[in-house]
Amino acid sequence: MHIVLYEPEIAGNTGNVGRTCVALGAKLWLVRPLGFQVEDRHLRRAGMDYWEHLDWEAVDNWEALLRALSDNRLWFFTKTAPRTYLEVEYRANDALVFGGESRGLPPSLLEAHADRCLRIPMRENARSLNLSVSVAVAAYEARRQCEANGRK
Amino acid sequence: MHIVLYEPEIAGNTGNVGRTCVALGAKLWLVRPLGFQVEDRHLRRAGMDYWEHLDWEAVDNWEALLRALSDNRLWFFTKTAPRTYLEVEYRANDALVFGGESRGLPPSLLEAHADRCLRIPMRENARSLNLSVSVAVAAYEARRQCEANGRK
Repeated sequence: MHIVLYEPEIAGNTGNVGRTCVALGAKLWLVRPLGFQVEDRHLRRAGMDYWEHLDWEAVDNWEALLRALSDNRLWFFTKTAPRTYLEVEYRANDALVFGGESRGLPPSLLEAHADRCLRIPMRENARSLNLSVSVAVAAYEARRQCEANGRK
Repeated sequence: MHIVLYEPEIAGNTGNVGRTCVALGAKLWLVRPLGFQVEDRHLRRAGMDYWEHLDWEAVDNWEALLRALSDNRLWFFTKTAPRTYLEVEYRANDALVFGGESRGLPPSLLEAHADRCLRIPMRENARSLNLSVSVAVAAYEARRQCEANGRK
């Protein structure tokens, strides 16, 4: 499984996502520009001693990410998607793509992949979930499905 | 659904759990002592404007929590449980109980409820997930099951 953070802004969240990726054996992709230094002590503190076990890569822009994951199916998470994350069948090498904390994914990207957009359901008075929480909910659902289907 | 944090230590994590509870319409219970002031600005910052929509309550100790949730079924999350969180059927008013960040749930409590202990699967070189991440993974799975079973 691949987790993609598009222009993430807060080091601590990316650290927690890294920790989740280690737990799942997923690869973490960071699309620049990032809102922090990859060496940032907050990132390593949030990721603690997990960061050394993490398979991760930072790419300069979206085009570079598309080239790197050209053989993988991409899912784009946005709160405006008509479909929920429970309505699709994940494959073991799918990539789950999440936007930065304040801006989310850019409209141009969502429009270009409208049939691959998913949302995590939430009550009306909740505007959004924490980024590291959203990643974990989606990634553990993908893991659950792949395990259930014996496609781990 | 009820989410219980037993002696949580880090305000930002409890804030993020509160945000998840608002998204799910779950009630948050905090069992004292807490590692922070409930008025802590970090907690409200992490929970942002969601905290005002949150149904929450702090109780003085475990006995008070048991009295308050005497009609609910409790599940205890610990990395040492033989059963995973995917192996049980949740009901809409179940309570999911999580320990503090550094200590987890006390052994006495796990032993007293050995048949209700669950773990979230992870790779060997990952020691644990962030607390707010663990809560979200378990709570969204409970929600998924309840929705699928029409018991929302």
